[in-house]
Amino acid sequence: MPQDYTFAVLGTEDERFKELRKLLRFKWKESEPEHASIVVLPLPFKLTDDILACLRPEHLVFAGKVSDEDKMRAWSAGITLYDYYAREELDILNAVATAEGAIELASRETDITLWRSKILILGYGRVGTALAYRLKGLGACVSVYARSKADKARIDVYGYQNADMTGGLNGYDIIINTVPARIIRRGELSRMRSGALLIDLASAPGGVDFQAAEELGVHAIHALGLPGKVAPRTSAELIRDTIFNMLIELEENVNANRD
Amino acid sequence: MPQDYTFAVLGTEDERFKELRKLLRFKWKESEPEHASIVVLPLPFKLTDDILACLRPEHLVFAGKVSDEDKMRAWSAGITLYDYYAREELDILNAVATAEGAIELASRETDITLWRSKILILGYGRVGTALAYRLKGLGACVSVYARSKADKARIDVYGYQNADMTGGLNGYDIIINTVPARIIRRGELSRMRSGALLIDLASAPGGVDFQAAEELGVHAIHALGLPGKVAPRTSAELIRDTIFNMLIELEENVNANRD
Amino acid sequence: MPQDYTFAVLGTEDERFKELRKLLRFKWKESEPEHASIVVLPLPFKLTDDILACLRPEHLVFAGKVSDEDKMRAWSAGITLYDYYAREELDILNAVATAEGAIELASRETDITLWRSKILILGYGRVGTALAYRLKGLGACVSVYARSKADKARIDVYGYQNADMTGGLNGYDIIINTVPARIIRRGELSRMRSGALLIDLASAPGGVDFQAAEELGVHAIHALGLPGKVAPRTSAELIRDTIFNMLIELEENVNANRD
Amino acid sequence: MPQDYTFAVLGTEDERFKELRKLLRFKWKESEPEHASIVVLPLPFKLTDDILACLRPEHLVFAGKVSDEDKMRAWSAGITLYDYYAREELDILNAVATAEGAIELASRETDITLWRSKILILGYGRVGTALAYRLKGLGACVSVYARSKADKARIDVYGYQNADMTGGLNGYDIIINTVPARIIRRGELSRMRSGALLIDLASAPGGVDFQAAEELGVHAIHALGLPGKVAPRTSAELIRDTIFNMLIELEENVNANRD
Repeated sequence: MPQDYTFAVLGTEDERFKELRKLLRFKWKESEPEHASIVVLPLPFKLTDDILACLRPEHLVFAGKVSDEDKMRAWSAGITLYDYYAREELDILNAVATAEGAIELASRETDITLWRSKILILGYGRVGTALAYRLKGLGACVSVYARSKADKARIDVYGYQNADMTGGLNGYDIIINTVPARIIRRGELSRMRSGALLIDLASAPGGVDFQAAEELGVHAIHALGLPGKVAPRTSAELIRDTIFNMLIELEENVNANRD
Repeated sequence: MPQDYTFAVLGTEDERFKELRKLLRFKWKESEPEHASIVVLPLPFKLTDDILACLRPEHLVFAGKVSDEDKMRAWSAGITLYDYYAREELDILNAVATAEGAIELASRETDITLWRSKILILGYGRVGTALAYRLKGLGACVSVYARSKADKARIDVYGYQNADMTGGLNGYDIIINTVPARIIRRGELSRMRSGALLIDLASAPGGVDFQAAEELGVHAIHALGLPGKVAPRTSAELIRDTIFNMLIELEENVNANRD
Repeated sequence: MPQDYTFAVLGTEDERFKELRKLLRFKWKESEPEHASIVVLPLPFKLTDDILACLRPEHLVFAGKVSDEDKMRAWSAGITLYDYYAREELDILNAVATAEGAIELASRETDITLWRSKILILGYGRVGTALAYRLKGLGACVSVYARSKADKARIDVYGYQNADMTGGLNGYDIIINTVPARIIRRGELSRMRSGALLIDLASAPGGVDFQAAEELGVHAIHALGLPGKVAPRTSAELIRDTIFNMLIELEENVNANRD
Repeated sequence: MPQDYTFAVLGTEDERFKELRKLLRFKWKESEPEHASIVVLPLPFKLTDDILACLRPEHLVFAGKVSDEDKMRAWSAGITLYDYYAREELDILNAVATAEGAIELASRETDITLWRSKILILGYGRVGTALAYRLKGLGACVSVYARSKADKARIDVYGYQNADMTGGLNGYDIIINTVPARIIRRGELSRMRSGALLIDLASAPGGVDFQAAEELGVHAIHALGLPGKVAPRTSAELIRDTIFNMLIELEENVNANRD
């Protein structure tokens, strides 16, 4: 990694970004955007006029969760927004922090140990795999619901129960949803074990009918943005590492084109 | 298990005891002490005149953490106090709840993930083993300090680092003490990594010089009675199961003596 | 699953197929191909005139590892060959048996315990993930080499070392290759630790220059077809389950088209 | 550790001792007994006249599995035999090698994967704990039988099934005995699942009625001395480390007495 970058990190009211600024400062100079070669924009990101006014075509600009609209708008101004949130490695690493946050919640919001508790995880993507692995390590009895035959095979291989869902959500102490689709509706909610906890990790609007949950007295929590909340320092490290990966690849491309 | 016991559970202001009463009610009649065959006394336990007035020699009386003094005093009144806390199985099972509570604390009180964090556990008894196992499952880098060669071998077998302590407490993000002796003094505290978290699980007075910790600005927490706090329902189940084990053994003894 | 299928299983000289025949016999009638509704062809599979003469267009025909050429040839005769080896779930489940076979080999062919041994796994696909997980559970010090940033993140998440390969294959007691490309050549072989074991799980021609290995005195084993060798009964169960999955989907398609 | 020891290692026909000699040679001079300060005797050990003739009172003599009789006989000749096999740490570490050997056997002698197989372990001492941990990591369904309430609690804590044995040995694919008492007799053997494998790790005469097993056609293996067979190099390392621990303690005692 070249040492002569100068970074500007905008948006430091966010805990992660304060940490990110500290981390970058270890190795690089930091400055106002007008003197920086690299600009990191706030997360969550919305391209405002103020931000756009700071950016120059000679900047390398990194942002997270960039909408297509904002990407196009920046593009029209001659600026490429590199979205670190679109990187698979960040997604994979962030899933660990999300899983830890969900475990902390599950531990705090129940009066039982996770050990010996019956837990259902809906979905076996990045967060689902990270969760299942950790909860099993904590001694929980882990069931996972996934639709594809390949995921069912993976669930079998890792020693979790394949939930068949014909019995619905009954029989579980804790249910954690990771599927970004409205799959837990009034019918499912009405068949939950009394006192069970429901945690929804799917991005807004989430996978749970929260109004029905409230009416039915189900203890349901919509937990969003956990990495930034439970582990801002680790989150900042992961963002930094991802930006580094992207910088290295950009340089390799530049060098390859030069040859 | 005979079905004709009648239980009286005293001390229900404690969360665990409310749960215990509910659990026992599933199978047995419950009553005031004067009509009960079995009396379960409050936890933590102190033998008062009020309590003593409730007890009869024909009662089977269970209590937790009974002092020798109270045991003798009850004995003088013709009453045997059976201490479920003196049972090894309860100690082993409670260690799980203690470990989960410590993990919840460690997760909540730091801004990093447990995954990849450097954790030192002092002591490799029941709580130490339960903690090390779980933290490794969460992806932490776990070092354990124990003195005996046999424990050092066990630590090696389970894949943890044997901490040598010549470097003191430096180099760890989280330090968890389980040793009931004042082993973390001003000297040790002054060499901790800035921002590190120290959790002391040893019963009062604990293993940490908390006054020095405060003066040095070390983030130190004395966490006591975790099972009852983080998992009152599971704690109640464990107490119930232990009392059952004791009842079965008492009956076996009675039967053996009868033959 | 309908109960009125009649199976013919060809190729019973293979240990897996003897087991498969036994397993199918539990539930279904078995017969010669001319009276069967379903025909399962030998594994590994080569379409011969003898086999072709047994098949009828009304048969459902299952085979494993079918070449494009054989598939076309059967097609010309009005017969569809359903390849269970093309199913992702079988691949995932078979990887477990392959991993176990490799572990048995590694255990048998070395004079050290897997516990504390330094093991390098090349590739982090199905077999690589199954191997790494198990070897870590056995207490080995596991390094994995993968090229993509996403796989590197996964390796990090599961707590293995990301091997950087700048030091080559030196420093490992056991090296297991899963990559189907000639990546271990004379240069790599010459830098292996003396006495180290090399296991190549990649299908023929494999990832190792075995001639160079022999000349250099490297202990190298090309281990192929492990599931059928180390666990023929489990392999047969997995093939049976996969054929069942395919039958269910074929029926669902038929029903969907009928509606 | 002082560097001026001179070792003599007798009994090098044993694979472990060849390795031990190599390991010691790294750091210390080696010689014939008459010029050595430390003598390591063959394993398994029997005090013969030939051996006794080699030993001098000024030697530090280490042996493994020393009988009381031999210890006394040496004592009469002015020689103390230090038994490294009597050290708890060696027992704990050797249990790992024994567990690996049993797993290799179980893998080789069955036609199923350990993954998903139903395994019963009798006894939860050093070998039982090491086995259960590893087999669970390999995805087996692990039941353990132990008698004490404390061990039952530990089995529960680590997530294994507590086997109740009222159903006898039926229902298991693999049964591994670690209890040095004749607990598996004709009655138990006659109720094993057909095709099940029985491995006895208890020292001679073992825990199994092998004659009955043969008559009943049960596949039973008495596996003894596994560490030396499956991992002679690691075994040698463990013996060396144990002897070092003993030497350090002997020196500490000498120094303490000197003060």
